Amino acid sequence: MTNITLIGTGTIGLSFCQLHLSRSATDRITVCDPRADLDSFLSGSEQVSAALREGRVRIARSLEEACSLATDIVQEQGPENEAFKTRLWPRVEALVRPDCLLWSSTSGIPASVQGAGMASPGRLVVVHPFNPPSIMPLIEVVPSPATPEELVRRAVEYFEAVGHRPVVLRKETVGFVANRLAFVLLREAVHLVDEGVVSVEDVDAIVENSIGLRWSVKGPFASYHDGGGRGGLAAFLANIGGTIQSVWDDAGVVNFARDGHDGASWLDKVVKQTGDAYGPVRDESLEYRDRATRRVLEVVRDEKGKASRTE
Amino acid sequence: MTNITLIGTGTIGLSFCQLHLSRSATDRITVCDPRADLDSFLSGSEQVSAALREGRVRIARSLEEACSLATDIVQEQGPENEAFKTRLWPRVEALVRPDCLLWSSTSGIPASVQGAGMASPGRLVVVHPFNPPSIMPLIEVVPSPATPEELVRRAVEYFEAVGHRPVVLRKETVGFVANRLAFVLLREAVHLVDEGVVSVEDVDAIVENSIGLRWSVKGPFASYHDGGGRGGLAAFLANIGGTIQSVWDDAGVVNFARDGHDGASWLDKVVKQTGDAYGPVRDESLEYRDRATRRVLEVVRDEKGKASRTE
Repeated sequence: MTNITLIGTGTIGLSFCQLHLSRSATDRITVCDPRADLDSFLSGSEQVSAALREGRVRIARSLEEACSLATDIVQEQGPENEAFKTRLWPRVEALVRPDCLLWSSTSGIPASVQGAGMASPGRLVVVHPFNPPSIMPLIEVVPSPATPEELVRRAVEYFEAVGHRPVVLRKETVGFVANRLAFVLLREAVHLVDEGVVSVEDVDAIVENSIGLRWSVKGPFASYHDGGGRGGLAAFLANIGGTIQSVWDDAGVVNFARDGHDGASWLDKVVKQTGDAYGPVRDESLEYRDRATRRVLEVVRDEKGKASRTE
Repeated sequence: MTNITLIGTGTIGLSFCQLHLSRSATDRITVCDPRADLDSFLSGSEQVSAALREGRVRIARSLEEACSLATDIVQEQGPENEAFKTRLWPRVEALVRPDCLLWSSTSGIPASVQGAGMASPGRLVVVHPFNPPSIMPLIEVVPSPATPEELVRRAVEYFEAVGHRPVVLRKETVGFVANRLAFVLLREAVHLVDEGVVSVEDVDAIVENSIGLRWSVKGPFASYHDGGGRGGLAAFLANIGGTIQSVWDDAGVVNFARDGHDGASWLDKVVKQTGDAYGPVRDESLEYRDRATRRVLEVVRDEKGKASRTE
């Protein structure tokens, strides 16, 4: 049995509550939030509502009531506000056992910043979800440089056990990785709309019917590795590198040369890592890609059809 | 009955051949390619092989044999080479009727460049697929500035009729839109790998389990519109705009101010277009998103499970 305390229960907190409840029938969850409508908000979820009646979820009105020596995990998704978080953690630290896991679901304030006032700042680990966390599998696990590997491992194990897909980031990067990649793409999408090349709706249709569909099955490196055929990613980049560089130039994103890297250094690195990760491209790899893509497309079309019929 | 001539039959040409064959049982396709192994290459597809036996697909060894007054559509996917394409089109133009549709599947050479030597350069329209075109629905329809709207419409109608999703680009943009968005994201992914934040495999896992999954169901603007709740995209950008700008700054992509735009101009434009396209965010919109996302995830997990069991 694990005692989990959730601090801050907006939409993300509620969704995490559902995720934790689905993990085991014995875990107990304490939710702590000053909002006046907390009871009615939690009752908006049937699953949480039932768990409240069964006593598996309880409400705490103060931090002292929410965190105790019986608490195994404290997970925070309060206001995205540095002052709030830096004041919170030393108070939490004083109430829980030394082996209690301390996690923040922040979308941008690194553990090293949040934990500045703690006695053991390395205890704090960011576990950044993708909304809604009860459905989206990604958890970006971002330790601070002071975090022991053991605490990284325990966060990974927890989220693997609920069927999610934790990925550890080795450096505290602005925006972490998923949002960072999305926001860089968004910037270019906004630019193309602003220039009148396409509308907002066109961008969405383009993404849904190309890279969204593809990347739901295989991420960009794996896809481009396939795209190179027998020669894998190296062949792909050799074929299409000129177009890629023209896009980078035209979109105003910097050439790697600007950062003091020559192209060869990153090129070798990504080609080697891709080859190590996926091996040579085999027919089975393309067959998997195509089969999975067709099934995803079928499901999305079916749901789109249903949605348009009920409108 | 439509007579379609495909010039250049590598992987993309073969896949288009399959797509055109699936459109109707009466269309006839002529393939023209100098490759010595053309017969055996085409026979690699059961569908095309059967169509060859039935006479629905025939092989032409010269342009004169491939293009005639009976040809309704000429679609080119030859070498990505400006000289090849600019030499090709005046020759084709001289062989076909004035109302024959002329399409190029180029991934980067604009119609206005390819058609420079033609008597009527506006006839040429780019129909850029996403690989493999027999499966991936997106077709980027990119006219030159000289193209009559009627020819744009006919390309759109053709690909809608085969169940694909054509999107018209209103300006000839380097890399078109899907690849452009993908390559901008790739650049940032390469940067994060180069910096040691994540590995190639981590990037793929992150994308598959967050933005890939999400964008297979709803593109970025529609997703961020949902993410703003009742306030839609405007509320989302108001909440998270600071993080987005920090990412743009940190990733070295330019601020819009650099281009002589103040933030407000593009912001108003994308917020208005998003509101017009999707209306206010309703519960049904989130329910659709979550239901479709769960089903996509289920299908991908099922296929991943099968693939790992057969390895």
